[in-house]
Amino acid sequence: MREIFKQEIEQLGLDLASMAEQMSTAIGKAVTALEQADLALAEQVIDADEKIDAIQHNIDEQAVSLLARQQPVATDLRVVITALRMSSTLERMGDLARHVADVARGRYPETAARGAGHDVLMRMGRQAVNVGDQVVRLVNTQDLDLAASIESEDSVLDQLHEESFQVVLDETVELPRQEIVDVVLLGRYLERFGDHGVSIARRISFLVTGDLTNAVATETNGTDVQ
Amino acid sequence: MREIFKQEIEQLGLDLASMAEQMSTAIGKAVTALEQADLALAEQVIDADEKIDAIQHNIDEQAVSLLARQQPVATDLRVVITALRMSSTLERMGDLARHVADVARGRYPETAARGAGHDVLMRMGRQAVNVGDQVVRLVNTQDLDLAASIESEDSVLDQLHEESFQVVLDETVELPRQEIVDVVLLGRYLERFGDHGVSIARRISFLVTGDLTNAVATETNGTDVQ
Repeated sequence: MREIFKQEIEQLGLDLASMAEQMSTAIGKAVTALEQADLALAEQVIDADEKIDAIQHNIDEQAVSLLARQQPVATDLRVVITALRMSSTLERMGDLARHVADVARGRYPETAARGAGHDVLMRMGRQAVNVGDQVVRLVNTQDLDLAASIESEDSVLDQLHEESFQVVLDETVELPRQEIVDVVLLGRYLERFGDHGVSIARRISFLVTGDLTNAVATETNGTDVQ
Repeated sequence: MREIFKQEIEQLGLDLASMAEQMSTAIGKAVTALEQADLALAEQVIDADEKIDAIQHNIDEQAVSLLARQQPVATDLRVVITALRMSSTLERMGDLARHVADVARGRYPETAARGAGHDVLMRMGRQAVNVGDQVVRLVNTQDLDLAASIESEDSVLDQLHEESFQVVLDETVELPRQEIVDVVLLGRYLERFGDHGVSIARRISFLVTGDLTNAVATETNGTDVQ
């Protein structure tokens, strides 16, 4: 019985790793699609989001079934609860990657945010891709230093997000309305993407250390306005 | 033993109801603060968000402790898992109410979105307040008709959200940059608020009917771009 349980817990871990991998691929392609007005790439991201949702569905069913059949306690319970929560966060990161791809597709054949907002958005995009990569590594290694670094590096995205508002609020810079809308939306999506990365980092820390202080903070709030 | 368990499950329900109540109060005050440039009201919402977060912390600790000590199965397990998920969603709705209040505070003594976007944002705000009220009733009554109505009525917020984009994208309408930014951000916050209401409605349906199809769809995506 315990052997089957161990296998099921391992399967949960593998599914989370696969979900993280696909989420990371999605944000990478979405940011490239945005930069290069690549319609095919944007559509790949949009189509792939269903697969990420399906893995989440699987993980959640597995986790609830495990709780019902095996009634885990202590560390095992922590692993299952963390899996449930992480799957929800990874799914949300996948959604945000799809939203970025939606903008890229919506502006095709133009490039979204070609004007004054381009530079800051691309820096945000690259930082988000970086977060996606780090989250994959973190899910695979459960390295606490990496978790801490994801958390502290979130300020980079927050600062870029602030900068994006400065760009669009400058009335002296010519900007079409669509571009202003895109900078605000994309900035918000990418900033939230980073917040969810922090949430994953905290959950992994909880898993490794058992420190509940970080675990129940399901979301970070980042900076939103100005 | 079962008597204590029953009491603990009831306590979870009471805490979720209290959390819903405070979230609903928060969105009501935030929308009024936005409409009337009421700084004190905005600050009440911002301060109260910590209390909502604290209830979530409690609910999550209780739920995990229940799982560890009582190892519930069947309906009881479903109740505890749903409580975990609902607390996370209600906390997020509280955050979004606080974001709305943040915008109101940031523009004080001016009113945010005074110009062309005012009307559509206020309609979105009132609809979000309506969602908050309905979620409170739903958590208290677990009425499946109400859950269905929350889900179907989300299209109202989605349509208003679309309308808000039309307003800001119209280059012939004079709009300061700050106002464009506020309409896009507030529109996004309020639309997401509605999505989370749908998420609560689905979880309650899951709780009552046991239909997992709705339960694992942790988020609805709404319409985001254009």
